[in-house]
Amino acid sequence: MTVTEQMAKVAMDARAAAQILASLSSAVKNELLQRMAESLINCSEQLIEANGRDLAAAREAGLAPAMVDRLVIDPARIHAMADGLREVAGLPDPVGEVTGMRRRPNGLLVGRMRIPLGVIGIIYESRPNVTADAAGLCLKSGNAVILRGGKEAIHSNLAIGNVLKNELQRMGLPGSALQVIETTDREAVLELLKREDEIDLIIPRGGEGLIRFVSEHSRIPVIKHYKGVCHTYVDASADFSQAEKICLNAKVQRPGVCNAMETLLVHKDIAETFIPHIAAAMRAQGVELRGCEVTQEFAPEAAAVTEEDWYAEYLELTLAVRVIEDLDEAIAHIRKYGSLHTEVIVTRDYENSQRFLNEVNSSVVMVNASSRFSDGNQLGLGAEIGISTTKLHSFGPMGLEDLTTRKFIIYGDGQVRT
Amino acid sequence: MTVTEQMAKVAMDARAAAQILASLSSAVKNELLQRMAESLINCSEQLIEANGRDLAAAREAGLAPAMVDRLVIDPARIHAMADGLREVAGLPDPVGEVTGMRRRPNGLLVGRMRIPLGVIGIIYESRPNVTADAAGLCLKSGNAVILRGGKEAIHSNLAIGNVLKNELQRMGLPGSALQVIETTDREAVLELLKREDEIDLIIPRGGEGLIRFVSEHSRIPVIKHYKGVCHTYVDASADFSQAEKICLNAKVQRPGVCNAMETLLVHKDIAETFIPHIAAAMRAQGVELRGCEVTQEFAPEAAAVTEEDWYAEYLELTLAVRVIEDLDEAIAHIRKYGSLHTEVIVTRDYENSQRFLNEVNSSVVMVNASSRFSDGNQLGLGAEIGISTTKLHSFGPMGLEDLTTRKFIIYGDGQVRT
Repeated sequence: MTVTEQMAKVAMDARAAAQILASLSSAVKNELLQRMAESLINCSEQLIEANGRDLAAAREAGLAPAMVDRLVIDPARIHAMADGLREVAGLPDPVGEVTGMRRRPNGLLVGRMRIPLGVIGIIYESRPNVTADAAGLCLKSGNAVILRGGKEAIHSNLAIGNVLKNELQRMGLPGSALQVIETTDREAVLELLKREDEIDLIIPRGGEGLIRFVSEHSRIPVIKHYKGVCHTYVDASADFSQAEKICLNAKVQRPGVCNAMETLLVHKDIAETFIPHIAAAMRAQGVELRGCEVTQEFAPEAAAVTEEDWYAEYLELTLAVRVIEDLDEAIAHIRKYGSLHTEVIVTRDYENSQRFLNEVNSSVVMVNASSRFSDGNQLGLGAEIGISTTKLHSFGPMGLEDLTTRKFIIYGDGQVRT
Repeated sequence: MTVTEQMAKVAMDARAAAQILASLSSAVKNELLQRMAESLINCSEQLIEANGRDLAAAREAGLAPAMVDRLVIDPARIHAMADGLREVAGLPDPVGEVTGMRRRPNGLLVGRMRIPLGVIGIIYESRPNVTADAAGLCLKSGNAVILRGGKEAIHSNLAIGNVLKNELQRMGLPGSALQVIETTDREAVLELLKREDEIDLIIPRGGEGLIRFVSEHSRIPVIKHYKGVCHTYVDASADFSQAEKICLNAKVQRPGVCNAMETLLVHKDIAETFIPHIAAAMRAQGVELRGCEVTQEFAPEAAAVTEEDWYAEYLELTLAVRVIEDLDEAIAHIRKYGSLHTEVIVTRDYENSQRFLNEVNSSVVMVNASSRFSDGNQLGLGAEIGISTTKLHSFGPMGLEDLTTRKFIIYGDGQVRT
């Protein structure tokens, strides 16, 4: 078979399996996920063995130790995958929920029922745990899933996929509801991205390069986020100790993730007092500051920012700082340089809090809390399948419900249109 | 300016206007739509004059009379556009609605606020009334709109656009919130479809050719429906007179629209009695039947169907008829040949009604009612911007709410993540 034929078969098999998955009860899906969790632990040895082949290849190829570490599967990570599946099994099932039932004047009863999307393609990079995590969320929401990980984790991904698929088959369910693509060249991805008649959604997870590649070539809808340039705006009325706590947490608690703060905006009226204060606190945590001219006046150790810094997602202990005139300028800065991810205002002023919540249209907008809460789990969605910074279908952290859609259901008693 | 530069300017101007539109109160938006309605009527003469140029060009080009008729703007159609705008002004505003507010264990109050999508592009064919109808829905939902109609209606579309834009400007709002593209070549569309940083959604309205063209070339999310191959399944338990009334209405009340029935499925147990009955009724309305072998046995006047008939959206007085074994076969037929638009079961059997509602995942699924109700207005959404048969974001008839998305809003009191 050519790659084109292989991917056509994968997609069509997934489509057929999706019909069956869509009708499963929550109880069956939950049992499936529990069994999968148990099986991952029981098969630890074979997973670690397969992972060993990936690790050997990675070391041979001279991958950086940090990259190799991301590839590792050990007993702790296997337990984490199993716990993830059990957690998803425990979440409420969005499928089948009926909402908005209303009687029309002609007697028709009209409402909406939540249904699975159908077939979801996940295209991801090195971490092999995504194979289990994404599969759990897609199956729980009644979808078939096609998983295409990076070639550096191919043996690990296939091994995890096989363990999970066996549980599907043991329960009499179609194994093609969960398929890990064996072909590791880009052509396979390109072929998958053309199967718009069988695949309903593509979610790329990885670096900006991967996401742009997928987005440019896909005929299937893609939900994505390129980067998180998250802002914290400290208003003139802010409680300084609260502002310090929130800024430090947003910047240093885990700087390498998309919901960490990248730019701090400070109202001019408090620049003279707040900036020396926060600069010292950041310095104590090893944060390198890059500031506008006014910032440099009050924090002489700060390097000068360039225009590019305002667009930067550092993902490390670097922070851009700007002193601004007022709330309007803060909002204008966020609109111009932001990535629609997460923005925070620290304030004690009622009107400013409301204006910020209403006028900043990023996917997550907060008052007096750390941007690090911008996460599906923290916001109460349960496990997270990704974060969307495009507005169609989902905006912000995505959970199970985001893997479903709604159809109209109508109960009549012979109505016809006149 | 090149076409590329022109379209870049259109898109960037729309993006800037969208920031302002998003913050307008419902009262201001409703007043705008009322003023636009009044202004269309006051400017009737200039609209009819501009339309005259399109009609002259159409006749000169030898367009079919039916096509010319679709282009006509007369006082009745101007009143219909004005009434449409007034109706939209009267609909509830989805923007600003806050739902799902919940307290997290750490005290954070988390909910979602509905916001406009931003900038919406509408790409449509001949009917100039779409200019006013689509503009009204986009503006009411707080979005800026870019309208690109067919070249045969260019003078009419520009004239309508100017009348509406004047009302924006008279209220001190940015005229670029509503832009009708003047360039009529395809290059302009291709350039628009690349402006993913400024345009949030593209809605194509027209024939399948236009929709496929837009869908294939767009980097911006597209919501679309290619066709409506709507089925009515008459179950063994159906009330014959109800079934006849529903089938006739679905087929003949307005055969040229996407929610008309194209295929009738009949349970084998009632074929001998129901088919002669419905065939006679259809014949009396001028419907040409194409049937499977069993159908032909009981309705000898029916022509033989081919495989293609099952996929056909006739949009005229032609009906494909198939006798099937049972509900399973009916569902399998709909899954194989359907277009995910609208499907109906006529039955008195409780279990079959529930199975049909649960297992058929088209965008609209009905029991004992005519498929002709599959329409935003009929289902209670108010005016309709389109119908989606793809599952992302919207599925089925789309109203104002479908032109919005939701952001997370979070009220904290100093929470940080540990």
